[in-house]
Formats: sequence, C-alpha cells, structure tokens
Amino acid sequence: MIVFKLLYVLAQLCGLAMIVLVGIWIFEHYGGLDFSSNPKIEFNWHPFFMTIGFIYLYGNSILIYRAFYTLRKKTLKLIHAFIHMSAFILTVIALKTVFDSHDFANPPIPNMYSLHSWLGLSAVIIFGMQFVIGFVAFLWPGMKMNFKIALMPLHIYFGLFGFVLAIATALMGLTEKAIFSLGSKYSTLPTAGVLANVIGVLYVIFGALVVYLATEPAYKRKPLPEDSAPISE
Amino acid sequence: MIVFKLLYVLAQLCGLAMIVLVGIWIFEHYGGLDFSSNPKIEFNWHPFFMTIGFIYLYGNSILIYRAFYTLRKKTLKLIHAFIHMSAFILTVIALKTVFDSHDFANPPIPNMYSLHSWLGLSAVIIFGMQFVIGFVAFLWPGMKMNFKIALMPLHIYFGLFGFVLAIATALMGLTEKAIFSLGSKYSTLPTAGVLANVIGVLYVIFGALVVYLATEPAYKRKPLPEDSAPISE
Repeated sequence: MIVFKLLYVLAQLCGLAMIVLVGIWIFEHYGGLDFSSNPKIEFNWHPFFMTIGFIYLYGNSILIYRAFYTLRKKTLKLIHAFIHMSAFILTVIALKTVFDSHDFANPPIPNMYSLHSWLGLSAVIIFGMQFVIGFVAFLWPGMKMNFKIALMPLHIYFGLFGFVLAIATALMGLTEKAIFSLGSKYSTLPTAGVLANVIGVLYVIFGALVVYLATEPAYKRKPLPEDSAPISE
Repeated sequence: MIVFKLLYVLAQLCGLAMIVLVGIWIFEHYGGLDFSSNPKIEFNWHPFFMTIGFIYLYGNSILIYRAFYTLRKKTLKLIHAFIHMSAFILTVIALKTVFDSHDFANPPIPNMYSLHSWLGLSAVIIFGMQFVIGFVAFLWPGMKMNFKIALMPLHIYFGLFGFVLAIATALMGLTEKAIFSLGSKYSTLPTAGVLANVIGVLYVIFGALVVYLATEPAYKRKPLPEDSAPISE
C-alpha cells in the first residue's frame, strides 16, 4: 500500500498544481474571473471549472473506493455520487459560459463546430448517462444483484473512458486557446504558451496516475465484513 | 468470443476508415503526398504515416495476442515486435517530415513549441523505450523468469499509455491543422473541417475499442500446451 499512497499523494499534488496554474494562466493573461458582460472574460470560467470539475473531481471520485477503502461500501457509494454531482454541476456551468462567450461575442461565434466541442460534448453525455444509470443501478434500492454484477465492468470501463476523453478534450482546448490568443507568437514560447503546455503535461500525468491507481489489481478494495455482498446496497 | 470478433472487425473497419479519410483529407485539401521541395506538401506525410504507424499498426500490434490466440507464444512475440518495428519506422519518417516542413519553410517555423509536439515526442520516447526494454526482456534469451513476470504489467500499462497518448496527440494535431489552414472559416464547417472532426472521432472509437479488447479479462489469451510458461521464450 505504500506505493499506492505515494502515487495517490503525487496525483493530488498534480491535480492541485494544474488547478492553480489554470488560475494563474487566466488571471495573468486573459483577464481573470468575473461574470462581466465581456464574453471573452466570461469564457475563462470554462477552463477553470472544467479543470476542477470534469478532471480533478471526476478523477478523485473514481479513486474514492481505493483511497478510503476502510469506509463502508454504502458510504463510499454516496461520496462517489456526491463528488460526481459536484463535478457535473461545475461542468454544466463551464458549458454555459463557453456557449455564452460565443453567443454574446460581436459578431457571434458559431457553437459546436470544432473537434474539441464534438468530443467534449460526447464526454459530458457519457458522464451524464453513467451518472443516471449508475444511480439507478447501484444506489436506488431493489435492483437485482446479477444485473448489478453484469453492469459493473461497463460502469468502470465507460467511467474511465469518459475521464480520459475529458482530458484529451482539455488538451485540444489548451491548443485552441493558445493558437487563438497567441497566433504565430505561440511559436516563440511566450509565458502564456509555456503555461498552457505545462498545464497540458500536468493533465496527462494526473490522468495517467488516476487510471493506474484505479485499474491495478493489487490496489483493489477488498469487501469489509459490514458490506453484505461484493456489490452491496 | 463472438463479441470479441465483432468488436475486433469493427476496430479494423474504423482503423481502415480513418486511414482512407486522412488520405482523402490531405489529397483533396492540402495537395496530396510527394517529396517535393514544398515544405507544406512534405508536411502531409506527417498525419498520414502517424495514422498508419503510430495509431493503426500500434493498436493492431497490441491486439495480436488476443486476436491470433491459436498461434504459439513465440510466434506472437515475433509478430508483435515486427509490427511495432514497422510502426516505429513510419513514425520516425513522420517526425522527419514535420521537422523538414518547419525547417524549410520561409521563414522557418520553430520546432517543439506546441503542446502537441511536447506530448507527441513524449509518446514516441515512451514507445521507443518500451520497444528496447520489451525486446531485451521478452525476446532476448536468458532473462530471468521472475524479472519477466514483474515487468509484464508495466510493459502492458506503458504500452497502452503510449497508445492513448498518441491518439490524444493526434487529436491536438487535427485541431492545429484545422485552425492553421482554415482560420475562422473552421467555424463555418467547411468540408476540410468536417473531415478533420470525423477523423478525430474515428481515432477515439478505434482507441476505445483497442483498449477494451486488450484489457477485458474475458478475452485474455490462455497459454497453449506448446507454450512452456505463462511468459515463455
């Protein structure tokens, strides 16, 4: 467990560093955070809330079972649902601000044309479906045990898939923002460009650590005596 | 095995479709393939060979053990090494052409400034290290069995990590090319932009299928009587 703990702490440090750096990036170079009438500044909530919600909280919610393995299964499921709900709320606000920043620009910028938007919306839809199906199947009482057991591998696979897709989409988002805002100056590696790249590298390391910690069989949570069954209510 | 076979065929169709569409994309919109002195056209080898080598062949090499499970372990390892070597050669040519397209542009474009280049080179280095370490550990005779057994989970993890990173990098590459070549016209969804987006979606589906088929425990290859040990020579 010592390796798990070390890598878990490293993942948290990476996660906090990427949130802080996104904050510095948008405050130092793009006007910071406020719900002003300036669509370019409203946009800044998008990378900030996506990083906190759709990457950091999403990743942490995945790891909750293995990191806090001494808690009862029922408690872990409630925490998992609660963190995912917080992540979802931040993600929806982040979506709203990017649509606003397009709609209220002069002239307005079309929505949903880029690969970033196509894959990002797909990741949000996968996340939303996982939430609804996971809630009904694993938290709502009365679902048959053999149904739960059959669904669990798919819940895990699509949970990790949505998480990795969110990170890939964030990397495209950083690329878009760097090119749109810096143009050919990006190639001279100004501070805003280097920051974007370092944030991207941190996303990848955070994602790689979360997926490793969530899939390595040695770190799997073993059922407690209090848990009534492998996939308990 | 019927589900494995269906998904395997689907992965192949996705893979071939993405190669054909990259071909159409660069021939219809960016001047096609030739080693002319025009750096913009030499660039086209980069997405073409990366798609064939660093995505399609890399993914197929990962799946070889589960797709052709009736072959002997030794044969599978040689095929795995051979496909990876082919993938590596195409990847190196693809790197050479993108550096050329920067160096011979007028004025020259700096190398290695973008997040795409940072993460792409990281993926190539991970791939190269995996190749060398995998060759020495699993193909070269005389390596101790307990060393092989300890290394195998890391070989699998970093193999899949490099593959997913290659796909994430390719998505950033499509985003860059669409914005650099189309500018604000990208937002009106011209054919070249739609094609780039569709190619990106196919990369993601191909990657998701490969990772699923390579990690689902039910599809794991069982040792044959001819294989001398779980990780045989």
